[in-house]
Amino acid sequence: MTQAAARTARARSYDQHACRLARSALAGDRADEVPGWLSERRRAGTFEVRRIPFDRLQKWAFEPDTGNLVHDTGRFFSVEGLSVREDDGPVWSQPVINQPETGILGILVKDIGGVPHFLMQAKMEPGNIGLFQLGPTVQATRSNYTGVHRGRATRYVEYFVRPRRGTVLTDVLQSEQGDSFLRKRNRNMVVEITGDIEEHDDYRWLTLGEIHRLLAVDNLVNMDARTVLSSLPFPPADGDDATAPHTDTELLSWLAGLKTRREREVKRIPLSEVRDWRRTPEEIAHVRGRHLRVLAVSVLAGNREVTSWTQPLLAAQRQGLAAFVIRWSGGAPQVLVQGLSQPGTFDVTELAPTVQCVTDGCTDLPQPPPFLDYVLSAPADRVRYSAVLSEEGGRFHERANRYLIVEADASFPREVPQEYRWLTLSQVKRFIGFSNHFDVEARTLVSCLQSLWGREPSWTS
Amino acid sequence: MTQAAARTARARSYDQHACRLARSALAGDRADEVPGWLSERRRAGTFEVRRIPFDRLQKWAFEPDTGNLVHDTGRFFSVEGLSVREDDGPVWSQPVINQPETGILGILVKDIGGVPHFLMQAKMEPGNIGLFQLGPTVQATRSNYTGVHRGRATRYVEYFVRPRRGTVLTDVLQSEQGDSFLRKRNRNMVVEITGDIEEHDDYRWLTLGEIHRLLAVDNLVNMDARTVLSSLPFPPADGDDATAPHTDTELLSWLAGLKTRREREVKRIPLSEVRDWRRTPEEIAHVRGRHLRVLAVSVLAGNREVTSWTQPLLAAQRQGLAAFVIRWSGGAPQVLVQGLSQPGTFDVTELAPTVQCVTDGCTDLPQPPPFLDYVLSAPADRVRYSAVLSEEGGRFHERANRYLIVEADASFPREVPQEYRWLTLSQVKRFIGFSNHFDVEARTLVSCLQSLWGREPSWTS
Repeated sequence: MTQAAARTARARSYDQHACRLARSALAGDRADEVPGWLSERRRAGTFEVRRIPFDRLQKWAFEPDTGNLVHDTGRFFSVEGLSVREDDGPVWSQPVINQPETGILGILVKDIGGVPHFLMQAKMEPGNIGLFQLGPTVQATRSNYTGVHRGRATRYVEYFVRPRRGTVLTDVLQSEQGDSFLRKRNRNMVVEITGDIEEHDDYRWLTLGEIHRLLAVDNLVNMDARTVLSSLPFPPADGDDATAPHTDTELLSWLAGLKTRREREVKRIPLSEVRDWRRTPEEIAHVRGRHLRVLAVSVLAGNREVTSWTQPLLAAQRQGLAAFVIRWSGGAPQVLVQGLSQPGTFDVTELAPTVQCVTDGCTDLPQPPPFLDYVLSAPADRVRYSAVLSEEGGRFHERANRYLIVEADASFPREVPQEYRWLTLSQVKRFIGFSNHFDVEARTLVSCLQSLWGREPSWTS
Repeated sequence: MTQAAARTARARSYDQHACRLARSALAGDRADEVPGWLSERRRAGTFEVRRIPFDRLQKWAFEPDTGNLVHDTGRFFSVEGLSVREDDGPVWSQPVINQPETGILGILVKDIGGVPHFLMQAKMEPGNIGLFQLGPTVQATRSNYTGVHRGRATRYVEYFVRPRRGTVLTDVLQSEQGDSFLRKRNRNMVVEITGDIEEHDDYRWLTLGEIHRLLAVDNLVNMDARTVLSSLPFPPADGDDATAPHTDTELLSWLAGLKTRREREVKRIPLSEVRDWRRTPEEIAHVRGRHLRVLAVSVLAGNREVTSWTQPLLAAQRQGLAAFVIRWSGGAPQVLVQGLSQPGTFDVTELAPTVQCVTDGCTDLPQPPPFLDYVLSAPADRVRYSAVLSEEGGRFHERANRYLIVEADASFPREVPQEYRWLTLSQVKRFIGFSNHFDVEARTLVSCLQSLWGREPSWTS
């Protein structure tokens, strides 16, 4: 046998698309039209969201015996309690959203004039800051696409459920907020098609370059779009693995160690048994104002047909922060990630941003996490990316985090704590490609990081 | 950017070890001594296992309110009930072993005379056929290695828990039988050391070639050893991906589709609420003799110090069958796997053997699964591997399956059903390397398949 370099089947498939997507990332000059288009879509119909007390919820109610907040049909999702015990440490509990079904977040891609374009949606969600944000072609819960809502079928969903037309560029299951959801995952898909499809006012073909510019705008590209973008076979990678500080085997071993370091028992409990949280007519909140709040809204939405509904949402107490510290090596970025265990994480521990403090903000923590001061005090010329971006507005009420990418300077510690590792971007992409490895905040930062490709002088690949 | 082939960090680490392990696979001529050594270890002490009725269990009891079979300490494992509902299909239930902790299965490797040797253990387990089988250096539950048993520490475990000495060749979390365990995983590790270690009569250094020859012997290499071997960076792979029928992206997309095809609700329920199972003083069994049985044993074991304990075990109704259909392409094997969902599977669906019928045997099934007839009627010259191998004797009572590897001939269907895919061995290894992708029966077959390396004329890599 020889040591000759043989491209793996994974790498072959990656390369095949990365160069074409690179063309798209360098193309397009109509990003500026998008904010106006979103406002126009909002004005084109009636869209109103109001906070309501719980007793004005329709089809939702607190179950008498458990206190869980559930829908009449038993579908969609429910707000329940979660109890967590680690080794022989103290037990703690919190509300959690239980939504056992797996939805689809999908983007259609099509070659227009030799350049791949992405079909993006002007998507209204009741919890969105600004109501309309830029979403993927399809964001559908299983209830949506199997018709439990009894509304019309989700537009374009047929491209993402079997039998599918088109070429799959990526298709992986990814977790959502482990601080709020119990083992929730969505299927993240990008499907390239060739034929014509029906156009619609709420959808627009954008280049990757245009989406990248929009990622720099506060609260514009929604979470669902960002997570799908993070799993794209992009940017092109060429040899950045040669400078990897750790092999994949070493990283997987480190992660297996973190996952098994503690025994953790996570149990669903009745919402009424959650300690230190209090229910008022308007909200369920932590007695000391920490973590998240459960509240309710009524929604009016539509242009020709106006529909109305009520639903619970989760609100964060304040704006959070998620930051990557990066460095350049061999003309490509490396990112510093941490292994983080959150109560609802699908597989115990996922790779998270260098700094992630998203439930209680980052200004009044009892003890600042590692590198928080470093990223907050970074001079402007070291901040490669900064924007406030919203989390999923179908479940969260105006929840937003500041996302930062900060370049390490010579003062950055050479040794990092045991829970932290430097990864090449190729490694990031491989781990994302195998599902359940990167948390949703880290995936947002990956999409922000790749939006710098072609604009960062240090990035030579 | 160029399309130049750049070895990934994963591949680099794989190659680095594969060639050295290949030397080990071609070395060693003392495999014949091992069966005698196992018998000798058995004779060197007192080892007795007897079936007992449940009421003679010590420290184990049925909880009054749930009927669950639990240990006094609440640790180790418990036998509980599991209820499974898929979409709106019928609900069914069964007993299941709940063991939320993650154990370690580890093999130490050391270079002796230029050839890597594996430290294998003469390991007694109460449910083993023959009582002693060849195990990995360490097989320890978390209770074992954190001292809940209050016995002496597991020998050599210090090489597998932090801080570790040595080089990690592989370290991944892998699932165990999804028909019997609820989301159980063990950490599969191979660690190479350089210094001397304390020798012990129950351990012996073997080459990979010797282990491979022993894999052909019925009930000799135990399940724990087999699963660890399957995740080794071996055999050397060189370009078999070039003939892959599917890219990794296509395979991961297919798997994501299978995982989300149905909504499945899996719930722990009291053992007393499991339907169609009956508890007698001697066993808990299905009323129509299907699936598994729960029984109890008393154990006497030791050489100088003899210890005794009692415990429950699970017994299969009859011998099962697990088979890979393989074909040769580009001088390397490709294997036909299926996506299989079992009630206790950690991540819904895992890749399983072409044929897996292990709970009820394969002779009296209501409907034979695809390819069963094909593998059972294969002429001898197409059977590349055949042996009866035991499952984990610490939880199963004399549970064994026939493991078969059958080479496809020209009559084998070109089109396979939607739940089946051909993978290159390099793909198999990559997927195993990312945890939770291959079920334990398939991992046994992977270790059997790699034992053919160097002996199969069609295998030219």
